[in-house]
Amino acid sequence: MKLLSRLIRPALGYASLLSIGLSGQCFAQTAPVHTIPARTIPTPTTVSPELQKVIARTCRLPSSPPPRTNEEWEASIHASDAEGDKSFDQLQKKFHVTVEEGKLGGVTIYDVKPDVIPEEKRRRVLMHVHGGAYVYGGGKNAASEGMILAHYGEIEVIAVDYRMPPKFPFPAALDDSVAVWKELIKTHTPRNIGIFGTSAGGGLTLAIVIKLKELGLPLPGAIMAGTPWADLSKTGDTYVTNEFVDNVLCTSNGLLEAAAKLYAGTHDLKEPLLSPIYGDLSGFPPTVLLSGTRDQFLSNTVRVHQKLLQSGVEVELLVFEGESHAQYAADVPESAIAYKEVAEFFDRHLDR
Amino acid sequence: MKLLSRLIRPALGYASLLSIGLSGQCFAQTAPVHTIPARTIPTPTTVSPELQKVIARTCRLPSSPPPRTNEEWEASIHASDAEGDKSFDQLQKKFHVTVEEGKLGGVTIYDVKPDVIPEEKRRRVLMHVHGGAYVYGGGKNAASEGMILAHYGEIEVIAVDYRMPPKFPFPAALDDSVAVWKELIKTHTPRNIGIFGTSAGGGLTLAIVIKLKELGLPLPGAIMAGTPWADLSKTGDTYVTNEFVDNVLCTSNGLLEAAAKLYAGTHDLKEPLLSPIYGDLSGFPPTVLLSGTRDQFLSNTVRVHQKLLQSGVEVELLVFEGESHAQYAADVPESAIAYKEVAEFFDRHLDR
Repeated sequence: MKLLSRLIRPALGYASLLSIGLSGQCFAQTAPVHTIPARTIPTPTTVSPELQKVIARTCRLPSSPPPRTNEEWEASIHASDAEGDKSFDQLQKKFHVTVEEGKLGGVTIYDVKPDVIPEEKRRRVLMHVHGGAYVYGGGKNAASEGMILAHYGEIEVIAVDYRMPPKFPFPAALDDSVAVWKELIKTHTPRNIGIFGTSAGGGLTLAIVIKLKELGLPLPGAIMAGTPWADLSKTGDTYVTNEFVDNVLCTSNGLLEAAAKLYAGTHDLKEPLLSPIYGDLSGFPPTVLLSGTRDQFLSNTVRVHQKLLQSGVEVELLVFEGESHAQYAADVPESAIAYKEVAEFFDRHLDR
Repeated sequence: MKLLSRLIRPALGYASLLSIGLSGQCFAQTAPVHTIPARTIPTPTTVSPELQKVIARTCRLPSSPPPRTNEEWEASIHASDAEGDKSFDQLQKKFHVTVEEGKLGGVTIYDVKPDVIPEEKRRRVLMHVHGGAYVYGGGKNAASEGMILAHYGEIEVIAVDYRMPPKFPFPAALDDSVAVWKELIKTHTPRNIGIFGTSAGGGLTLAIVIKLKELGLPLPGAIMAGTPWADLSKTGDTYVTNEFVDNVLCTSNGLLEAAAKLYAGTHDLKEPLLSPIYGDLSGFPPTVLLSGTRDQFLSNTVRVHQKLLQSGVEVELLVFEGESHAQYAADVPESAIAYKEVAEFFDRHLDR
């Protein structure tokens, strides 16, 4: 009997749910928090050597608090933009695209064209809204992700360089995007147009569709919301479970929290046009969502996925092994796989 | 200048990837492991109160090492089965199903029927293979998950009580499943039949299809592989990132590792029929995969997802907020959502 009771314990630790015994009565304790011991996590061997190098980079926390004044924000933005500028030419060369600055609906845009556009895709266009926590990533860097998808999708991309804080908080980004949309639907059938973005750009993509519904404007034929910042209030499980595991965001406290507040201004962070997870997502066009197993925004992504499914929307979820926030856009072989899957998604769903 | 350099740092910690600057040169250090500090993670507020209670249960590690002898395994299995038996009647009542034990192809099966089967589903059947690390979950508990899907899918389920270690290691489980399949296709059109399972049952579902391909037998019309144990060798990122975060498996060392070895016997853990992630997944029927953000098998799930996508298979991925391994089968409102989505998947893909 002593042997038996010694052996019952290991089994009870697992068996109930493993065998779908369901009731889970084997777990005795209930606690408001889990305590996770300190630990080291190795780089996974299940991704390409190039991605392994990216995953192996350690989380580096800022050495100073986030900017507090408009001047400090502008200096921070300037420094970030300068960093992004360095890789711009390299990206353009790598992806064989031309990038032309212009205006559409009074808004600065970058018209990104791949070298060759197949006949069947010439009536299509993708509108892109960049990431960067609604603060960073403006100027010509607004065209970065557009270059990737223009290349893999063999399609023209109009990247919106929307106005941002500290001068132009919410809803300037949304207003600018809608202004560009109104122009695009003058020259293109709406169902020939896709909208896409990553991180803040993913959240903004969702917010744009909610706004278009509110305005009674035609909706795009399909959208991609990559690891969308769908909840600016830091609500969601992986904000905590993947804290420090995600080597891009590291934590959503500090800078990210400050950026959310700067963008929201006097508005509540949970307003649907700021945090689209709280919006009405019914009637959305087919949507593809991307995230990674280490992504702090994995919960943002899967919550949007479930809400879209339950709203009857056609939606696909892609979650990439070992990747932190937006790392599907890193310069690794997995990036080509991700954007080709997105390109095929738009191919299947946009009209010609 | 001093101000500027102070402000550059916070921006560089995030801006590159957030703004899809891509090159990631902002991260200076590369290390083979990440060190994650000890921390407490709260229960998410983004799930139902019932699921919050399930998530709040703390990870309870076994107080003793895994069984070492056949006698110790059998005692452990007996104790686990007895625990599962307690909830059997309750499940049957809750899901309004009849369960009848029988034989098919010489294998013990449980024929699970919902009270009402709509006319259009009467020619269909789902074959189920249970979870339990290829060791636990046999006997009448083999019918547990079948009861859930029989109910939500309004469809007959044949649950296979396949032989297991310590007496019957690999490939007994697979052989028994194939034997049942051969009988089922005598009375049903193969494309009217689905196969499904969770955990070990999810891995076995994938292995069955690989085996049917090898044997040149007809394939099912669709399958569900829930959080599949697709890699028995503990290879995959969330085996480590979600260690102790997952309150069902807690860790894949100890009991789970011992069960894998017991099942594999003299075979290599990476043989495709044991770890189907290493198999040829081309030509698979439409597949739905389930996991959770805290699941230790999230990597198993997303690796299978990507491999199926890249093999040209129609596949859907569902990842549930805050859930640990197989917790979509827990007695919570989210369970109804999950199994209804699976039922709709089979509805869309099975012939009539």
